[in-house]
Amino acid sequence: MPAGQSPRETLDSRLAPILTLLARQPILEDLARQQSPQRSALVSELVHRQGLGELERRIAALSAADVAHLLGMLPPDERRVVWEQVPPPVAADVLWEVTDQVADGLVGITPRPRLIAICRAADADALNQITRHLPADVLPEVEKEIAPPVRSWLRALAPFPADSVGRIMGREMVVAEQSATVRSVLKQLRRLPEVPQPLDAIEVVDDHDRLVGRLTLHTLLTHRPAEPVAMLMNPAPIAFAPDERAEVAARVFEREDLVTAPVVDQRGRLVGRLDVDSVMHFVHSDAASQALRREGLSGEEDLYAPVWTSAKRRWLWLSVNLLTAFLASRVIGAFAGTIEQLVSLATLMPIVASVGGNTGNQTVALFIRGLALKQITARSVPYLARKEVGVSLINGAVWGGVMGAVATLLYRDPALGALMALAMLLNLVLAAMVGIIVPVLMQRLGRDPAFGSSVLLTFATDSMGFLIFLGLASAFLV
Amino acid sequence: MPAGQSPRETLDSRLAPILTLLARQPILEDLARQQSPQRSALVSELVHRQGLGELERRIAALSAADVAHLLGMLPPDERRVVWEQVPPPVAADVLWEVTDQVADGLVGITPRPRLIAICRAADADALNQITRHLPADVLPEVEKEIAPPVRSWLRALAPFPADSVGRIMGREMVVAEQSATVRSVLKQLRRLPEVPQPLDAIEVVDDHDRLVGRLTLHTLLTHRPAEPVAMLMNPAPIAFAPDERAEVAARVFEREDLVTAPVVDQRGRLVGRLDVDSVMHFVHSDAASQALRREGLSGEEDLYAPVWTSAKRRWLWLSVNLLTAFLASRVIGAFAGTIEQLVSLATLMPIVASVGGNTGNQTVALFIRGLALKQITARSVPYLARKEVGVSLINGAVWGGVMGAVATLLYRDPALGALMALAMLLNLVLAAMVGIIVPVLMQRLGRDPAFGSSVLLTFATDSMGFLIFLGLASAFLV
Repeated sequence: MPAGQSPRETLDSRLAPILTLLARQPILEDLARQQSPQRSALVSELVHRQGLGELERRIAALSAADVAHLLGMLPPDERRVVWEQVPPPVAADVLWEVTDQVADGLVGITPRPRLIAICRAADADALNQITRHLPADVLPEVEKEIAPPVRSWLRALAPFPADSVGRIMGREMVVAEQSATVRSVLKQLRRLPEVPQPLDAIEVVDDHDRLVGRLTLHTLLTHRPAEPVAMLMNPAPIAFAPDERAEVAARVFEREDLVTAPVVDQRGRLVGRLDVDSVMHFVHSDAASQALRREGLSGEEDLYAPVWTSAKRRWLWLSVNLLTAFLASRVIGAFAGTIEQLVSLATLMPIVASVGGNTGNQTVALFIRGLALKQITARSVPYLARKEVGVSLINGAVWGGVMGAVATLLYRDPALGALMALAMLLNLVLAAMVGIIVPVLMQRLGRDPAFGSSVLLTFATDSMGFLIFLGLASAFLV
Repeated sequence: MPAGQSPRETLDSRLAPILTLLARQPILEDLARQQSPQRSALVSELVHRQGLGELERRIAALSAADVAHLLGMLPPDERRVVWEQVPPPVAADVLWEVTDQVADGLVGITPRPRLIAICRAADADALNQITRHLPADVLPEVEKEIAPPVRSWLRALAPFPADSVGRIMGREMVVAEQSATVRSVLKQLRRLPEVPQPLDAIEVVDDHDRLVGRLTLHTLLTHRPAEPVAMLMNPAPIAFAPDERAEVAARVFEREDLVTAPVVDQRGRLVGRLDVDSVMHFVHSDAASQALRREGLSGEEDLYAPVWTSAKRRWLWLSVNLLTAFLASRVIGAFAGTIEQLVSLATLMPIVASVGGNTGNQTVALFIRGLALKQITARSVPYLARKEVGVSLINGAVWGGVMGAVATLLYRDPALGALMALAMLLNLVLAAMVGIIVPVLMQRLGRDPAFGSSVLLTFATDSMGFLIFLGLASAFLV
């Protein structure tokens, strides 16, 4: 590629020397430590300083997004070393780009004076993104230095949740008066010290800052200087409200192929601008976190969090899981007498439970995706429920039959085989029903349908699998 | 919002009447059927025609993306009715927007003449996207009517896989000569019959169609007509190759905040353009499918596929799951004698297995996300492995202790309690190790780390959980 640069190689080639440097650092220090104490201190100091100087130089050459990526792939010690070298003007953007838990961790290890320096160097958009990570007493410290309009803008957005349009929108945009002409807008564009990126259109407002239309750059380019903006603009552009959910905006961006869109308050006043990059960033991190939420982890879980923090974060669901597993085991306990008489039941019962759990999880995964993509409506739930139960009846009959035959051959006991086949069929049907009910009910209750669904479903298929299998056995077999 | 329209409400209000219409249809026909046979035919015909006319009118008012969304949320019968009303020029774009399995299903129920009509009405970009769904004999039928440059473009891209840049890029772009001036480019823009959307920059090529730079619309707007394009353009823009993976391009788009980017072949010639909408569409559907792949389903699984098709699609993993569950149950079978002597072992063993499975799945989910976000490098695997094992040691000690205490109290047997605690600790450590090894190994082997990882992990934690618990019991307890 003579003209273009391959961006993948570029990122790797930018990060590789830093990783090498970080890897070398402790080795060099170890070497230094083997000398006599006085010399050691001097050598270590030199090595350390030189290494840090090189690191600082390398990090300064990276974009905020690259630094964020680098921090996300480093263990705590190295993360701290890199973070300390990030200059304050870049640091705010870095805090914005990393995941929430990484940001909280970084803020936690940053001394107060540096946090204040970072806030001072940040622009309005970055401040809007990072305030929720900061200790309560940091922002008031810098607030007096912020220009009054920015300050009131930040205060107005503070109450909106992290997944709202108000929190992912920006303040930078090009705004023209309703009375402008192509000529005056072009003049305005030429005078801008910095152009908000991406810029595909400019917002048009009336005397009261109310959005009255949008004008694309292409329209500007292809019309004569004297033409009035009001005649050329789109008078009914797609606009969002700051309290709308970012997820909804993401779907609209995708469907309508938007690059940017204005955000207006209840009175129709222009308060900000959403762009496709923020929206894509949101979609990407939201989608990546869904799998974690199904397993009962926070979607923002930091892979490199300290061991104790990570261990404790899993306690809630571990205790829920232990409780459900304990309850399921009580079902077995109730049939201890039956198992004592026919120990092969203990051998076969986990098969019934396991197959139920796995097929149920398939149904859950399908329904969570369907709900996320809005493919499932109240109207289609009965159809889909019939379909999934139909699928489980077919698969229960076919594979229950197979396992029934295997059990018959293994234990030379046709009655046990028939029991196995029936229990599998019933547990698969149950798994399908629970796999539909759990996500649909969670959604109706306004909860995240993914959160912990895996543990809940396994509880149902385990305990009911044992109940069906052992219950039938004690009734008909023993 | 006086100026903007709320896009969410707009979509709902566009689709609602169609859903109502579809819901009414069968009822009206049922009514018609209750009349005498001759009248019935006439009434049904009228009802049907009126309903379809209304439906056709409503569907014509929708964008391709809206129709695709509508089709994705309809059961097969209704999907067919709606699909038949979609006019051919829109139909190609609809096939492009729906998921792969829905597209295959739609093509399967479309008569050949209509498929040919759809291809005839499609533009180059849409044809590039839908060819892989079409029967082999449809495209040659229309190929002779395609303009030669488009035909050779399509043929050149055909070998690239569905997740490559070549398959998600478009052919529509604005290309200027190296020798152009701002004035000549503006003239060219004004003459374009249709503007490729989104348009943030134009590509600049030399006499051999090789990309030499990019010029943003903003630069065009803010410079004098006489200035030469070659002086204003970015001479080293980020460019992609058609055989690069779309996933890589998506990450670069996100990191570099790109709106569009040129695609060049090995000789540096401009062959297409990627835009953020296609990239976002890819990211979204790819992320949504990951959860399905973990459960051993195809990422493109169609929620509304017919029962038989859905049932058979799950057979591969159902049989794998049955096999693994059967193998795990053989472990129990080997200790049948031990269980006969102490039936409480049968009651407690599923707890050991279940907790191992759930925590192991948490580790798997964390590692799959880490690998997807490139946060895990060969260098960091040992650190992360130590960390996850550390977490499992802590949690195994804490919660194994809790369960050991519960088992002691329940069965008044301190030895059984100690056994329970030790088995839980060991199985949690094992779960953590398997939870790391499975996705990392899959990735190293060039496989999708998500695919079927859930079944594999559960196999390991179940069989090893039984082996550890029952093995320790038979050695020390019975």
